[in-house]
Amino acid sequence: MTLVGPENPEQARLLRLLRDDGPRSRVELTDALGLARARFAAEVERLTAQGLVEVAGPAASRGGRRSSLLRIAGQVRFGAVAVGTGRLDVALTDGELTVLSRLSEPLDVRVGPEAVVGRIVELLGKLRAEAGLSRLTGVGVALPAPVAVREGSPVSPPALPGWHHFPVRDAIAAELGCPVQVDNDANVMALGELHAGTGRAFDDFLYLKLGSAIGCGLVLGGSLYRGATSGAGDIGHLRLTDDGPLCVCGNNGCLEAYCGDAAVVREALAAVQAGRSAELGARLAEAGTLTMADVAQAATGGDATAQELVRDGARRLGQVLVGLVSFFNPAIVIIGGAAPGIGPILLAEIRGVVYRRSTPLATGSMPIVLSDLDDRAGLVGAARLVSDQVFAAC
Amino acid sequence: MTLVGPENPEQARLLRLLRDDGPRSRVELTDALGLARARFAAEVERLTAQGLVEVAGPAASRGGRRSSLLRIAGQVRFGAVAVGTGRLDVALTDGELTVLSRLSEPLDVRVGPEAVVGRIVELLGKLRAEAGLSRLTGVGVALPAPVAVREGSPVSPPALPGWHHFPVRDAIAAELGCPVQVDNDANVMALGELHAGTGRAFDDFLYLKLGSAIGCGLVLGGSLYRGATSGAGDIGHLRLTDDGPLCVCGNNGCLEAYCGDAAVVREALAAVQAGRSAELGARLAEAGTLTMADVAQAATGGDATAQELVRDGARRLGQVLVGLVSFFNPAIVIIGGAAPGIGPILLAEIRGVVYRRSTPLATGSMPIVLSDLDDRAGLVGAARLVSDQVFAAC
Repeated sequence: MTLVGPENPEQARLLRLLRDDGPRSRVELTDALGLARARFAAEVERLTAQGLVEVAGPAASRGGRRSSLLRIAGQVRFGAVAVGTGRLDVALTDGELTVLSRLSEPLDVRVGPEAVVGRIVELLGKLRAEAGLSRLTGVGVALPAPVAVREGSPVSPPALPGWHHFPVRDAIAAELGCPVQVDNDANVMALGELHAGTGRAFDDFLYLKLGSAIGCGLVLGGSLYRGATSGAGDIGHLRLTDDGPLCVCGNNGCLEAYCGDAAVVREALAAVQAGRSAELGARLAEAGTLTMADVAQAATGGDATAQELVRDGARRLGQVLVGLVSFFNPAIVIIGGAAPGIGPILLAEIRGVVYRRSTPLATGSMPIVLSDLDDRAGLVGAARLVSDQVFAAC
Repeated sequence: MTLVGPENPEQARLLRLLRDDGPRSRVELTDALGLARARFAAEVERLTAQGLVEVAGPAASRGGRRSSLLRIAGQVRFGAVAVGTGRLDVALTDGELTVLSRLSEPLDVRVGPEAVVGRIVELLGKLRAEAGLSRLTGVGVALPAPVAVREGSPVSPPALPGWHHFPVRDAIAAELGCPVQVDNDANVMALGELHAGTGRAFDDFLYLKLGSAIGCGLVLGGSLYRGATSGAGDIGHLRLTDDGPLCVCGNNGCLEAYCGDAAVVREALAAVQAGRSAELGARLAEAGTLTMADVAQAATGGDATAQELVRDGARRLGQVLVGLVSFFNPAIVIIGGAAPGIGPILLAEIRGVVYRRSTPLATGSMPIVLSDLDDRAGLVGAARLVSDQVFAAC
């Protein structure tokens, strides 16, 4: 396959500037890159010839020197894929990683990696055809699993039976003929925050992903930190106790077995059986089952038992966060992935535990906030993931 | 004061190469820096004129091209200072950070920062005079305290009453007329490991410092990571419980109040009072007091109660480490600062907890080892700390 991309570090920096800050004038860009004007013009010419950069129009006058606005070319289009345990989201973004079109559908990941990869390729093909594109510039994929990034495949994924070492990256790349990059969903969502969320303003932050799986993404010095074996932030299967509730991974007492969606629902069912919540009981009777959405609606509707269940989970999360925050000293903690509506209850409890138990130097001025990206964090992050690769010097 | 130092990034890289790897030939260095020969020769000439680099002799022949060995000049001498709560260590190192001479004495940090700084200046002056030097190239200082590195002063240090915001860096620099850099002792010891210990072979590691104060130093991508407010790794006053033992910081239930030397000694005294250790009882009767060294000697001598005290502390450390390791995914954990002899007991217990409770991707191939630098970690690290500043491009 023919790959396009920057030929040197200056071209790479130029592309990333345009991706992150939008259209800018030649004058501003020349200054920002610290290049001589002739050299700058030559690099822009090469990027234009490659179809990566284009003129967006005249720049506002700065007196005397005329300049034009440059931007990432309109033919640069990234595919973004967020695989959840029960849902598949696929999107197309432009070169600034704005979502242009999107398809979502229910998905049971237990159908196995071949079927899921097939569906990803189909949906991306559909979006590509609708947009009239002959190819995608690159595709980023978020998986609800520990991912060996260099191999592009999941490693011992508790929630994805049958996916161990499946070559997700290479399988998609072979079908689509473009660069593909795969990473763990919490890492990808942290990248989304870095690009388009609250994290934009911070060089060092901790992104805590809640939901059916729990994980962290760490941004250090403006870049995602993956650790020695790309396992950094994998706190979901941290064992809090040796004899706690059974976890999906087969062990007992994991953080996720206490605070993941399934754990909260399990406790909600127990509360109904013990006659402690008429509201949850009514929902169970009506639907024949309970989900995290039921618990969240009951909690936001004022049901004391549902609220207590949410707070119990949040307290444990807070206790784990205390250690992480003291250890890593982030500028901010951003929390995403919580069920709709329960953010405020979660946040109050987590803040209480973290601020009470942490050291003053670590948390004196550290905010803990909810993500404002909703479910776009994964898609924007997936586009960012692959664009970091495509916009890197060869 | 007149400062010497590199004038550009290439000179800085050359100095760091010579500091970290020792004398190397012009040919090797030219290749390593990727510079043209004329440019390389010019940079070396400027560094030689500044008294930072010198010729060490002829290089081994590589056939044809004659070359000479270069090294950091003999007049480059760093001062290294490690302040403990009960002890002061001061040393002189060469440009490769090898300790050339050293003075140690008991010190009670509660005499206050002015007196301690005065003593540091006296001892450095003595070492400098003995070596016949007119000035030091720079001085690095490790403090048993959280340090705001940019300000060069401790922040709310639990173990250093009266030191809050005292300008340690500027006070020493004013006396000695050379660059001074101050940091937390666990961070500095991690730098020592990175330069001369097991950490040399790893880009990402966690250094756990035990002793009277407990802390961590994090090396990420080959550099010390300090966090948003230089508080990264400050886990000593992480609160494990709300109602645990009283800590020196005034709170209850801090990690240090469970596992620091004072905590172990407190439990040892309780064990003697309960008649649970004849060995510790005999030591108390003989000396009128118990120290961590007594507990360590009793434990290594086979006293079951002393061993259990060491294991109890190690278990709590292990439980905290489990979270840190899952979160940060280091390539290796290096443990230093333990009382002589008890390393193996500590290590067995910590490994047991960490390997049992952590996720496979994070700890599958992660060693946990004892530091092999003994008490040199702090001094080598202090020299490294200031040399990183002196050997940086202006």
